[in-house]
Amino acid sequence: MSRPDYELHYWPSIPGRGEFVRLALEDAGVPYVDVARLPEKDGGGGKALMKALKAAHPEPFAPPFLVYRGGAVAQTAAILAFVAPRHGLVPDDEGARANAIQLQLTVMDVVAEAHDTHHPISTGAYYEDQKPEAKRRSKGFVEERIPKFLGWFERYLEAAGGKHFVGGVSTYVDLSVFQMIEGLEYAFPRAMKRMAPKIPRLLALRDAVKARPNIAAYLASERRMAFNEDGIFRAYPELDL
Amino acid sequence: MSRPDYELHYWPSIPGRGEFVRLALEDAGVPYVDVARLPEKDGGGGKALMKALKAAHPEPFAPPFLVYRGGAVAQTAAILAFVAPRHGLVPDDEGARANAIQLQLTVMDVVAEAHDTHHPISTGAYYEDQKPEAKRRSKGFVEERIPKFLGWFERYLEAAGGKHFVGGVSTYVDLSVFQMIEGLEYAFPRAMKRMAPKIPRLLALRDAVKARPNIAAYLASERRMAFNEDGIFRAYPELDL
Repeated sequence: MSRPDYELHYWPSIPGRGEFVRLALEDAGVPYVDVARLPEKDGGGGKALMKALKAAHPEPFAPPFLVYRGGAVAQTAAILAFVAPRHGLVPDDEGARANAIQLQLTVMDVVAEAHDTHHPISTGAYYEDQKPEAKRRSKGFVEERIPKFLGWFERYLEAAGGKHFVGGVSTYVDLSVFQMIEGLEYAFPRAMKRMAPKIPRLLALRDAVKARPNIAAYLASERRMAFNEDGIFRAYPELDL
Repeated sequence: MSRPDYELHYWPSIPGRGEFVRLALEDAGVPYVDVARLPEKDGGGGKALMKALKAAHPEPFAPPFLVYRGGAVAQTAAILAFVAPRHGLVPDDEGARANAIQLQLTVMDVVAEAHDTHHPISTGAYYEDQKPEAKRRSKGFVEERIPKFLGWFERYLEAAGGKHFVGGVSTYVDLSVFQMIEGLEYAFPRAMKRMAPKIPRLLALRDAVKARPNIAAYLASERRMAFNEDGIFRAYPELDL
């Protein structure tokens, strides 16, 4: 049996940033091994992940990273910029590709800010030790940042024709926006209910992505992981102001 | 007189994220207009910047953004991924380009975390209103994050041959690492003095970038802006633990 061309390495118990890479590979129908989620005897688990990180060349700074024949690449947006042209997940045009990177980086900014709502002081410390600060940080995220970010994504989608973000075709950006919306709805259901009337195109795109055959099959599979309170998007009602 | 191909748009009073784009364009000797730094009568200033943002297509989420013939692109790392292949600032190889994006994104992570040391709770609020939290956040940045980030950059550079980060040649990544080191030394001089013995290759690279003819000319010009306390890297001694 031949080994797939790609090994994805990411924390085995959260969807996190690795999920953006999974969605791209799944939509393109590209075989990959989700290494850290294998049984421990086959190289899975968090300890093996850190070993794989040290063994990869060039050394990734942090998960997720993708090992391919000939190298390794880390940073979610860099991984996607690398795999997308190989598998028809972005048009062959320098402007379109730059815009795809731009959009993905703005998704990653939302992800980082969503994470910082529950860890405003230190990633190394527990949420329980930074709760008052988390509440203050969440207030700004919910009241100012979510409307600003999603308002921009909605206008961008509208200006792009309303159906797809880049080049009038399905790209990894559509998949990433799907995941971002799902995460925000999981973590901030009340805030997102207020946003809903203002983002009809984003919500329609989310539904369209969900219905893509490879994505629908993936979401119904055991490979898809649920959001949870160890991850980036956490359902803490006290932060959903 | 013909208009240069590129308009850079960024806040006129801080080096910030725009500086990474300036360094790339300057090193490549590519003419550009630094629009917001023009006199107000010629379209400069912060208000005109926000107007230019609304007028650009596709609409950027935030400065910096680059307007080029045919479009616009925002997000520092996306701008660099776009201009670098056009002007010999990155090798023509998909793996090398992905690694350049990866490295640039890790520089941007350092930039974001350096910013959050003085604004851990809210970007919209004053530093003076989040000083105790800033001190707590800085402690983690100085004690854990700077050594982790710079240790990784040093090992990466060593594994890449010690002189350049990508493909054995000068790329925009070298320029960005130069700027990151300069910023960290400005904001955290004591912490960086402790780091110095552990990062000989990074410091030598910084000196080598400084001596590149186009960069040396740029640094000596009025176009180069000094770090200051409105920017990302701020000299607050109380945070340099």
